[in-house]
Amino acid sequence: MAELLNRTRALCTPPLRAAVARLAAPMDTVAAYHFGWIDRDGTPVVGDGGKAVRPTLALLSAQAAGAPAEAGVPGGVAVELVHNFSLLHDDLMDGDETRRHRATAWTVFGPAQAILVGDALATLGTEVLLDAATAGGASPTDAARAVRLLNTASRRLIDGQAMDVAFEQRDTVTVAECLEMEGGKTAALLSAGAALGAVLAGADDRVSSSLQRFGDHLGLAFQAVDDLLGIWGATEVTGKPHWGDLRQRKKSLPVAAALAEGGPASRELAEQLADPKGRGEESETELAARALLIEQAGGRAWTQEEARRQHTTALAALDEVPMPDVVREHFVALAEFVVVRER
Amino acid sequence: MAELLNRTRALCTPPLRAAVARLAAPMDTVAAYHFGWIDRDGTPVVGDGGKAVRPTLALLSAQAAGAPAEAGVPGGVAVELVHNFSLLHDDLMDGDETRRHRATAWTVFGPAQAILVGDALATLGTEVLLDAATAGGASPTDAARAVRLLNTASRRLIDGQAMDVAFEQRDTVTVAECLEMEGGKTAALLSAGAALGAVLAGADDRVSSSLQRFGDHLGLAFQAVDDLLGIWGATEVTGKPHWGDLRQRKKSLPVAAALAEGGPASRELAEQLADPKGRGEESETELAARALLIEQAGGRAWTQEEARRQHTTALAALDEVPMPDVVREHFVALAEFVVVRER
Repeated sequence: MAELLNRTRALCTPPLRAAVARLAAPMDTVAAYHFGWIDRDGTPVVGDGGKAVRPTLALLSAQAAGAPAEAGVPGGVAVELVHNFSLLHDDLMDGDETRRHRATAWTVFGPAQAILVGDALATLGTEVLLDAATAGGASPTDAARAVRLLNTASRRLIDGQAMDVAFEQRDTVTVAECLEMEGGKTAALLSAGAALGAVLAGADDRVSSSLQRFGDHLGLAFQAVDDLLGIWGATEVTGKPHWGDLRQRKKSLPVAAALAEGGPASRELAEQLADPKGRGEESETELAARALLIEQAGGRAWTQEEARRQHTTALAALDEVPMPDVVREHFVALAEFVVVRER
Repeated sequence: MAELLNRTRALCTPPLRAAVARLAAPMDTVAAYHFGWIDRDGTPVVGDGGKAVRPTLALLSAQAAGAPAEAGVPGGVAVELVHNFSLLHDDLMDGDETRRHRATAWTVFGPAQAILVGDALATLGTEVLLDAATAGGASPTDAARAVRLLNTASRRLIDGQAMDVAFEQRDTVTVAECLEMEGGKTAALLSAGAALGAVLAGADDRVSSSLQRFGDHLGLAFQAVDDLLGIWGATEVTGKPHWGDLRQRKKSLPVAAALAEGGPASRELAEQLADPKGRGEESETELAARALLIEQAGGRAWTQEEARRQHTTALAALDEVPMPDVVREHFVALAEFVVVRER
């Protein structure tokens, strides 16, 4: 698995850095900081460069369509650009001060830079796909299909964030609402990534739509695992603040599932979340007790089961696409990695 | 002229509203408020719908390529969407509280909604152009060319805003820097608008590049006039706060030209702008005196002359494109309107 992710970084990081370097100063610096390539003083940082799940999907998707992994590179770079556009804007909207163990860009460079650089990365994503056609790597028609795929994913991404922002004002959300929100915030871009390489390589709509469904369900599994890690993950591994999701009263799947269960622990949890008193000021002990309530109401087990269900559905969609055995094995290994990871 | 702008509104407003209506709640409401279609309580407003210069260029550009004005509609809608994406984000970044005589969207719905809806309008712009191909109004190749044109304009737009934000930290900018910034913030989108209709109608690159140059210079003339109105315009007509540009110490063309002149009034102006004391707290009398300094240092006359120069260069670019006489007359009338308007 490490080998597969390292191949992605080797193929996608240079063109990603080249795309970011096209931004006018100081946006190039802000973006390089956000990606973890430099620290706030401009000193280069040797980092692991993130999980690289999204671009790995794009490279495998090109291979699924019979092309070399390289044909998927513009797709991999484009999904990383759009993903990071959304992170820059979401961190600002949500007031999040740390990400990946580091101060978020808006806290270092101010809100205006976070907005601007997010906007710039979004347009760069489209530019990279159009350049793939100019460079002769893809036909103009396929590049336009790729732009459409990415743009639709961006729209779903924004819809998902809009739901997330709206949920902040509410004490409770249903499991269905939570799944729809997570479908936008996470699954949309994994879905686009899983098909972009194939589209750039000229695959037909049937192949691309099966790959999109694979990515969609994998994305929902990914987010279910993220929600579990957001409550029960080791903070030194995830890089997220301890009990951060609970402190923010985030409407994640374990919470929604626990609220739906209706037993004594579920009702106690609902009461706590409806109480405006103490919001954001709960002690570690109180938050640990809340995590236990969610677990007692079945929220943890339900979400673990949901991750498995989505994982299984994703693999079924993958089975619909004829592809070389070695490519399928890589897809399966990546899907496994997504559901068993610890950060 | 009113007839031409009314035709644009009749053709572009319905598809623009239909595009905005595709946004998930509450983004559709925030966007409708921003466009001036409803007030903050949701009551429909009968407004004039803005100047409509950008979409008018797109419709004329389709006609310049021998197609009906209708062929340019997706281009007109797309530039309006991108223009309003940038207004939503810029008002927030700049802290502007009023626009077109109304409270800006971020002051009414909060910063998160302004960010989200701006993001959504930007992606909708691309979607509308791709839909033009799906609906059979343009070939897939031409739709991809149109997406490229719009995306490049968005990049320049963001670069221009980045320069504007950077200039806020400085006491002075050169005329060349100011022109580059305004080229991004204003000319980029007029340039795209002036060519989008022709590209959607299948015009060749030579035609589209002359039309882009026409729009580019017209955009610089437009912004020069805007800068003049920002200081000497009648606030009840422009809808902008009295002496707003001077109070914000905005680096506009008249200011940059006055600073470059070097005489006594120019030096006095430079001293005032270098003084951090009283920033934003100047009295009306002090700001009126500053406007007089800019005029005495030749900033007003230089900018008026610059608007005329850009207007002339724009018309020369237009002359390179063969087109029906009536279309050329409309382009010329629109260019005249841009430089003589009072708001």
